[in-house]
Amino acid sequence: MNVTVRSRTRHFRTVAFDAERNAVLLIEQRLLPHEFKVIATRDFRETARAIREMIVRGAGAIGATAAYGLAQGARAFRGRDMKRFERHVEVVYQTLKAARPTAVDPVNAMNDARATMSAGETVEEQQALALAAAEEFARHDVEHCEAIGRHGAKLIRPGMKVLTHCNAGWLAFVDIGTATAPMYAAQALGRKFHVYCDETRPRSQGATLTAWELAQQKISHQIIADNAAGHLMQRGQIDLVIVGSDRTLGRTGEVANKIGTYTKAVLAKRHGIPFYVAIPLSTIDWTMKSGFDIPIEERHESEVLGAWGVTAKGKREYVRVANPGSGAFNAGFDVTPAELITGIITPAGIFKPRELWAKRRSLGYVL
Amino acid sequence: MNVTVRSRTRHFRTVAFDAERNAVLLIEQRLLPHEFKVIATRDFRETARAIREMIVRGAGAIGATAAYGLAQGARAFRGRDMKRFERHVEVVYQTLKAARPTAVDPVNAMNDARATMSAGETVEEQQALALAAAEEFARHDVEHCEAIGRHGAKLIRPGMKVLTHCNAGWLAFVDIGTATAPMYAAQALGRKFHVYCDETRPRSQGATLTAWELAQQKISHQIIADNAAGHLMQRGQIDLVIVGSDRTLGRTGEVANKIGTYTKAVLAKRHGIPFYVAIPLSTIDWTMKSGFDIPIEERHESEVLGAWGVTAKGKREYVRVANPGSGAFNAGFDVTPAELITGIITPAGIFKPRELWAKRRSLGYVL
Repeated sequence: MNVTVRSRTRHFRTVAFDAERNAVLLIEQRLLPHEFKVIATRDFRETARAIREMIVRGAGAIGATAAYGLAQGARAFRGRDMKRFERHVEVVYQTLKAARPTAVDPVNAMNDARATMSAGETVEEQQALALAAAEEFARHDVEHCEAIGRHGAKLIRPGMKVLTHCNAGWLAFVDIGTATAPMYAAQALGRKFHVYCDETRPRSQGATLTAWELAQQKISHQIIADNAAGHLMQRGQIDLVIVGSDRTLGRTGEVANKIGTYTKAVLAKRHGIPFYVAIPLSTIDWTMKSGFDIPIEERHESEVLGAWGVTAKGKREYVRVANPGSGAFNAGFDVTPAELITGIITPAGIFKPRELWAKRRSLGYVL
Repeated sequence: MNVTVRSRTRHFRTVAFDAERNAVLLIEQRLLPHEFKVIATRDFRETARAIREMIVRGAGAIGATAAYGLAQGARAFRGRDMKRFERHVEVVYQTLKAARPTAVDPVNAMNDARATMSAGETVEEQQALALAAAEEFARHDVEHCEAIGRHGAKLIRPGMKVLTHCNAGWLAFVDIGTATAPMYAAQALGRKFHVYCDETRPRSQGATLTAWELAQQKISHQIIADNAAGHLMQRGQIDLVIVGSDRTLGRTGEVANKIGTYTKAVLAKRHGIPFYVAIPLSTIDWTMKSGFDIPIEERHESEVLGAWGVTAKGKREYVRVANPGSGAFNAGFDVTPAELITGIITPAGIFKPRELWAKRRSLGYVL
């Protein structure tokens, strides 16, 4: 996506790799929208920390980061002993996998990379294949998002009011995004519409990242409190909901996504408003049999008890909002059942959530 | 309620009147829980501003504040000309009424006061009656909350997990509160239970005021993001919902309350979780025929775009969270239809929302 930094417009990807320095390049998303900064991680542990601490977040973006991190870790290995190399790669894999448990993109991305690597006969060959696989994941991520945009654009008609939750925009992927891809594609077709961004507490990715993206893209939008979508639906002010996903079960059509997504789906169902989930193929989990088995990440209570923002003097600060003597419960994700989802927008077309399994061949399922 | 300020425990009411200084005494709720301070308003315009700017908020509390404000305004009148006095009182009434449009307590409280005043034949008599009426409103508010506690306590069984939204505690009333009254009464009966407080963006009354009250009262509780209640319900972690109301329609059983209440009611219905609304009689609007006629207050977008809290250095600050180029839509209330409400906890007992009209005589309806 094109970003204007200090009056110069440049094209940025959310995640990239510097082969010379063996570093993963990431937009420091926690500083957005107040500051735009690209950081470089020096080793796979730093890359895992960047995922865990949400310097980079979003399904495809952490998938690509994990794939690059795996390559980074593999490339840092010195020596020719394949057994030792494989043990090392296993440590890299597990470290990156543990960073965010709910998301499946990192697992899928790294599994693909390891399958690709297995064709290499030497450490050096496997190191080269790891990086090639990561680059391929990133390229596919962009292509998938473009295809989602093409398929999803037809859902957005002129004058519509569209609700989205959290950020499934280009910052959540290598580029373009999923939930926002149909919006960008519809805009390119000249259609005018309005987007309501749920602020998405506790980390406010809607108010910070999605609003920033839409403002860059000059798409009409307003931020709303997470409490307000029900009221807007009741008053006929929302025509369509599009969200992303961190893990979609190919066997059941259940969708894990940012906490609050389930609530929006329940409200949309009550009001007969179409509710779509946009995903690249790497977000599909073909193995798991029930949404209740999806590990739901619990994060630190400080996220709920306060907020990060910028003071009147322009200083970035955390303020404690809540009563000092009180604690919080902070689940990061929830699971939306198939019956509440109108359709899943994939790179291969739009499907009913329970059709995914039947369409698994065209959706990249490998036996 | 008893509050410990600088190691001394004292009994405070949320709203009181100082007849000598002709001042309304209010807890400065915007500073809570970080600072406890009582302020005095000097005239009715300052009192109206205190309501509008939410120094005082909550159905009964702003009802009592408006009644005291009417008395304050009436008592400030100099002269014996009844016509001029009546015109003055009308200005006072309209000024206080306009401060918060969604709430009906101020209107009911002031209408009662004016009916009482009409028995006075001189300015002086009417001034005295205005204050007597305000004191009576405040006394009734406390009695009503006590009765709500007695009726509602039976809903809270040992081990239950109870969800509440916003603050309908003693800070929202003259004392005791409505949604919290059953909790305080159940605790007095020795029952142990756990309360989840929705943080209640954008003004975070749940995270600040309700959590502070429950901590003072030593009731087990946790704050959750407004996004999290659906997930908790889905996982069987919520047994009961109790909220307050700013206006309940006696003819239809529809309930206006803090934005997000409707969403919680929709979720509770889906999960078969009892959803109760606790109200004093002054919150019932016997006139209005449809919830769509309730004026929904729209507040400044800055509430959604940032947050007030305390920095690490202990300074109270507003931080801008959202993208600087983006705006917000900020409706303060929503309306929950009768079909989603299990029961209304009133001082006269618990009723189905559509029973209110049939029970209107015992609920204080005057033809």
